[in-house]
Amino acid sequence: MNPPARPVPAASQDAKPTASIHYATVPTMSLSSKQLRGIIPPLPTPMQPDGRRADVDAFARLVEFSISAGVHGLWILGTTARFDLVSDEDQRVLAETAARVARGRLPLVLNVSDMGTQRTIERARRCDDLPYDYYAALPPWYLPMSVAEVVDYYHKLADELARPVVIYNAPWVCNQLPFKEVRRLAEHPRIVGCKDVGPHVGRALEWPRAERAQLGFSYLHAHDLVAISADLETDGFVTALADPFPELAVATWNAAVGGDAARAFRLQSQLSRLSQATQLGAYLGCVDVACRYRKLFESMLPQPLRALDPETAKRVVAVLDAVGVVPV
Amino acid sequence: MNPPARPVPAASQDAKPTASIHYATVPTMSLSSKQLRGIIPPLPTPMQPDGRRADVDAFARLVEFSISAGVHGLWILGTTARFDLVSDEDQRVLAETAARVARGRLPLVLNVSDMGTQRTIERARRCDDLPYDYYAALPPWYLPMSVAEVVDYYHKLADELARPVVIYNAPWVCNQLPFKEVRRLAEHPRIVGCKDVGPHVGRALEWPRAERAQLGFSYLHAHDLVAISADLETDGFVTALADPFPELAVATWNAAVGGDAARAFRLQSQLSRLSQATQLGAYLGCVDVACRYRKLFESMLPQPLRALDPETAKRVVAVLDAVGVVPV
Amino acid sequence: MNPPARPVPAASQDAKPTASIHYATVPTMSLSSKQLRGIIPPLPTPMQPDGRRADVDAFARLVEFSISAGVHGLWILGTTARFDLVSDEDQRVLAETAARVARGRLPLVLNVSDMGTQRTIERARRCDDLPYDYYAALPPWYLPMSVAEVVDYYHKLADELARPVVIYNAPWVCNQLPFKEVRRLAEHPRIVGCKDVGPHVGRALEWPRAERAQLGFSYLHAHDLVAISADLETDGFVTALADPFPELAVATWNAAVGGDAARAFRLQSQLSRLSQATQLGAYLGCVDVACRYRKLFESMLPQPLRALDPETAKRVVAVLDAVGVVPV
Amino acid sequence: MNPPARPVPAASQDAKPTASIHYATVPTMSLSSKQLRGIIPPLPTPMQPDGRRADVDAFARLVEFSISAGVHGLWILGTTARFDLVSDEDQRVLAETAARVARGRLPLVLNVSDMGTQRTIERARRCDDLPYDYYAALPPWYLPMSVAEVVDYYHKLADELARPVVIYNAPWVCNQLPFKEVRRLAEHPRIVGCKDVGPHVGRALEWPRAERAQLGFSYLHAHDLVAISADLETDGFVTALADPFPELAVATWNAAVGGDAARAFRLQSQLSRLSQATQLGAYLGCVDVACRYRKLFESMLPQPLRALDPETAKRVVAVLDAVGVVPV
Repeated sequence: MNPPARPVPAASQDAKPTASIHYATVPTMSLSSKQLRGIIPPLPTPMQPDGRRADVDAFARLVEFSISAGVHGLWILGTTARFDLVSDEDQRVLAETAARVARGRLPLVLNVSDMGTQRTIERARRCDDLPYDYYAALPPWYLPMSVAEVVDYYHKLADELARPVVIYNAPWVCNQLPFKEVRRLAEHPRIVGCKDVGPHVGRALEWPRAERAQLGFSYLHAHDLVAISADLETDGFVTALADPFPELAVATWNAAVGGDAARAFRLQSQLSRLSQATQLGAYLGCVDVACRYRKLFESMLPQPLRALDPETAKRVVAVLDAVGVVPV
Repeated sequence: MNPPARPVPAASQDAKPTASIHYATVPTMSLSSKQLRGIIPPLPTPMQPDGRRADVDAFARLVEFSISAGVHGLWILGTTARFDLVSDEDQRVLAETAARVARGRLPLVLNVSDMGTQRTIERARRCDDLPYDYYAALPPWYLPMSVAEVVDYYHKLADELARPVVIYNAPWVCNQLPFKEVRRLAEHPRIVGCKDVGPHVGRALEWPRAERAQLGFSYLHAHDLVAISADLETDGFVTALADPFPELAVATWNAAVGGDAARAFRLQSQLSRLSQATQLGAYLGCVDVACRYRKLFESMLPQPLRALDPETAKRVVAVLDAVGVVPV
Repeated sequence: MNPPARPVPAASQDAKPTASIHYATVPTMSLSSKQLRGIIPPLPTPMQPDGRRADVDAFARLVEFSISAGVHGLWILGTTARFDLVSDEDQRVLAETAARVARGRLPLVLNVSDMGTQRTIERARRCDDLPYDYYAALPPWYLPMSVAEVVDYYHKLADELARPVVIYNAPWVCNQLPFKEVRRLAEHPRIVGCKDVGPHVGRALEWPRAERAQLGFSYLHAHDLVAISADLETDGFVTALADPFPELAVATWNAAVGGDAARAFRLQSQLSRLSQATQLGAYLGCVDVACRYRKLFESMLPQPLRALDPETAKRVVAVLDAVGVVPV
Repeated sequence: MNPPARPVPAASQDAKPTASIHYATVPTMSLSSKQLRGIIPPLPTPMQPDGRRADVDAFARLVEFSISAGVHGLWILGTTARFDLVSDEDQRVLAETAARVARGRLPLVLNVSDMGTQRTIERARRCDDLPYDYYAALPPWYLPMSVAEVVDYYHKLADELARPVVIYNAPWVCNQLPFKEVRRLAEHPRIVGCKDVGPHVGRALEWPRAERAQLGFSYLHAHDLVAISADLETDGFVTALADPFPELAVATWNAAVGGDAARAFRLQSQLSRLSQATQLGAYLGCVDVACRYRKLFESMLPQPLRALDPETAKRVVAVLDAVGVVPV
């Protein structure tokens, strides 16, 4: 097999617009601007009051809000969105909405994770008509498999999916990949990135940036130590903190990659103080409070998740008030 | 709310036969014969050689084989079936097939587990037209929830599903329920059983049989220590060992509940020797070898699962040869 | 190196009696009777009311009680004894006491586990003057090591300890050994047994009895499914249930190895019913209640362990009353 | 009970110098300078070539080296020292040596962790004659206990130990305390600090600095994100990275608490780059290579630990060469 030249994303040629959405107006992005780099918020799913159906209008506004705040990409239907709790129908509408609102202004990643080869391939296919740049997939998470089986899984996805694949590696998944396996998988020309949750803040240093660049591979983290980790050559951050605080996350990233050490340090301190507020209760419950504080929507907690109790919510708000939610 | 009298299963009145399947020929079962009790094999999914699509004909034969062997119920699309790896379309066909072949001759449980309230309800609805007696559901398994959230989840399922609910409690699920929560959930009139994986072999003793009977509740285990555990008042066994060895599992059960201690002990010893053969490699890989030994089908391992290596497969076969796969 | 012929235990020639204890009166045991086989209770540590110092007299009585009940060996200062909570000084006195009371009537295993090579060797040395037959050692349990490091650890112990080594393999230890490593370690002539906690009840079947016999190796379990597992070729049982119920454990073993299937099944059922009573609260708390029920001592829970609350203790006693604690 | 005024450490009055060591020359430290704050290296145990006995002379030099580099305290016989693998006799000599060399120039913490109340109290007593300021203790780590039992454990230690207690809370310990329990324990006047391994980098923000100050309580972390975490009000860092790189760790701390954001950021980046080098193999194996690079000793890996393989060791050294091991 003759692997396709890298890093050409398959998105443009593969996109098959549906009748109801006109992508003709999508501005052309240069290929390099499609690279996954910088702040890539994993958008939540705004819910209707019953906690059962998504609030699509609120989601559309959220997409626009994030883009206006300058984020560098969007991670759609990820863990923060609780894709595991959202109906297939709503997932489809949300995926459509993000693509429609984004209008190609920034790279879009759609998490198509399901638990097995066939299921993930079929889940992805249902969105092949939408102009996503990348499909993200977790390792299967129902029961442990051998490493060889997980590698087979990713190779099959990479061979068959209509978009290049981003590995979504996470410690709560029973088949989390060792770092060295991620690097081996990166040799597949259609595996173009990894969101790696939980490794050492400087893990990217182990993988020379030049090598990643040559492979067209993005190595992303999920934590919010943006400034220091950006300085340590991490390509980008898929952190839920960028949902309520996108301006600050972006400013922190910019200061770090721009070499303004003092500003990077100060903004990181502010971001970490806000991050601490998300540790006061269930993590997504806290992010939910922060997003409501920013008036982004009414709730992001599908059933059976419960909102933070009022007492804890107040403590979260007190931190937001004290620290400030935009760059100072 | 006035809870419906127990233990009337909703199955008969709720069944909405599809056009293509005639259930008119289904023989009437007395209600008590619908109780979950005895040997209830969790049927595997026979696969076509590509590991992608189910082999529906082989599955139909398997259902008949199991019933002919005298099993007391069937557990459809469970973990042994690797529901997590089987496409929605195949799941539907398999669910139809089991119901069609079974013709109401024994209680049928359909595992409709998905990861959140809305998703599980919608997954179940897709089969409401089939004559299942019970729907089984795992606790959500993607991320940890509070116990209150998991309880909400089950209450909502019990309130809304078209069939009575069997809790499928398993230690590999991050939201596994404590035993005392299972007992509390049993107070809901539509929660009628629990397949509890992993507890002490005599755990049923903690829950007086009379109390369970009054609730119309079945407490099932998943291990294969059938004889001793039946003697310790466990209501039934959903064990994959009953897939290749249903005659032996049934005979062991019968000896134990019939009070034939010597025979119960000898059959249990035979069953445990066969069980040991399933420990020689990946568990389902070993069960796969044992089912092929019985000529039940060609494979039960959906992608990306791999078959046992030939060396280990030979060791499994050697044990089956030595021990014998039918009651001696 | 020329390995010593097996299975000669080093005990007799290595024993260096202290001045204060006369072992001249120890009756000679044939070598084969020193083999670890059958019911080997892991004796608890009777405590004085303050929970700080051992009650040595009660311990002496317990040793005699167990031997009188017909047990086949004694496991001294193990987990049931909470060696981790007992002072070095008390450990020495207890080790002396067991040896003194036992008078060579049955094989004695002393658990000398500590967390590293040097520490375990030094801990063992402090008892080299006592007539123990075997020293047991857990894998190091403070931090994970590589398998190679754990193997080095056992080889060093086997080379240097004054008694043959019994591997004490347990799942709560972060360096638990895989079964195949246990088998490899068994090739060392001074590693003569393994108490393996947690494996499949028929695991011994994977290790042909003839091969074990030739190696002079005993493969022991820690659970209380004595009858079935004995039938499946397990050599013996180090189960805390044999502390309060030694007569029943011994009778169950005897029925199983004597081929009386019906009696084996009935006694196992009785034993498992008692076992279930130890699941009603913290395991050792329940065993403590059962031992007090048998009037063996006042407490076996060193600080900071707490006794079972009275309510739960009553439930334990109710089961003991109902089931009966001696063979029926 | 009238709790003693805080934060007066009991050290000065309790110290009972042995005959062989003259503490008369120990310079007087003001009480506030005894507070645990800043960089507190957990010193390793230099070993003789056989991996069995400590190299006491090398340890003495290491203590002096660390103090000369400006560290703010010393953590003796902790996990980095592999106290779990070092003989009691060596532990005593090392504890003596650290105290003798330190001459009261900085606060000294002795880890006296053992697995139960009585054992820890007795282990601590063996060093009561040495001029330590604090005793650190892990929660018991052999088997899980109830929170109430662990709290009892600490209260007993606090009541009886001759020095104020520092809780050593770590995720690899099965009885790790929840943060709120640490805060409750802090109400005991003799519990004066916590080294908390693993929490969010800004966890200290949840515990107002004024409240900690009033309690005389130090909240320490074990990671090496010194600059950002110091800015987020963490009191100090017990990180093994301060063993080979004490100058850099101290400089990073000083920049952060001195408000020099740009320098704090740059030094943190350097420190994190070195930290990444300790992720290339077994953590302590990497620290061992780094310490040898600094020519501090020949080995810090007691049996059965193995040194890093030469290939990996070279990769570690390459990073040290590239990044530089002193502040730039």
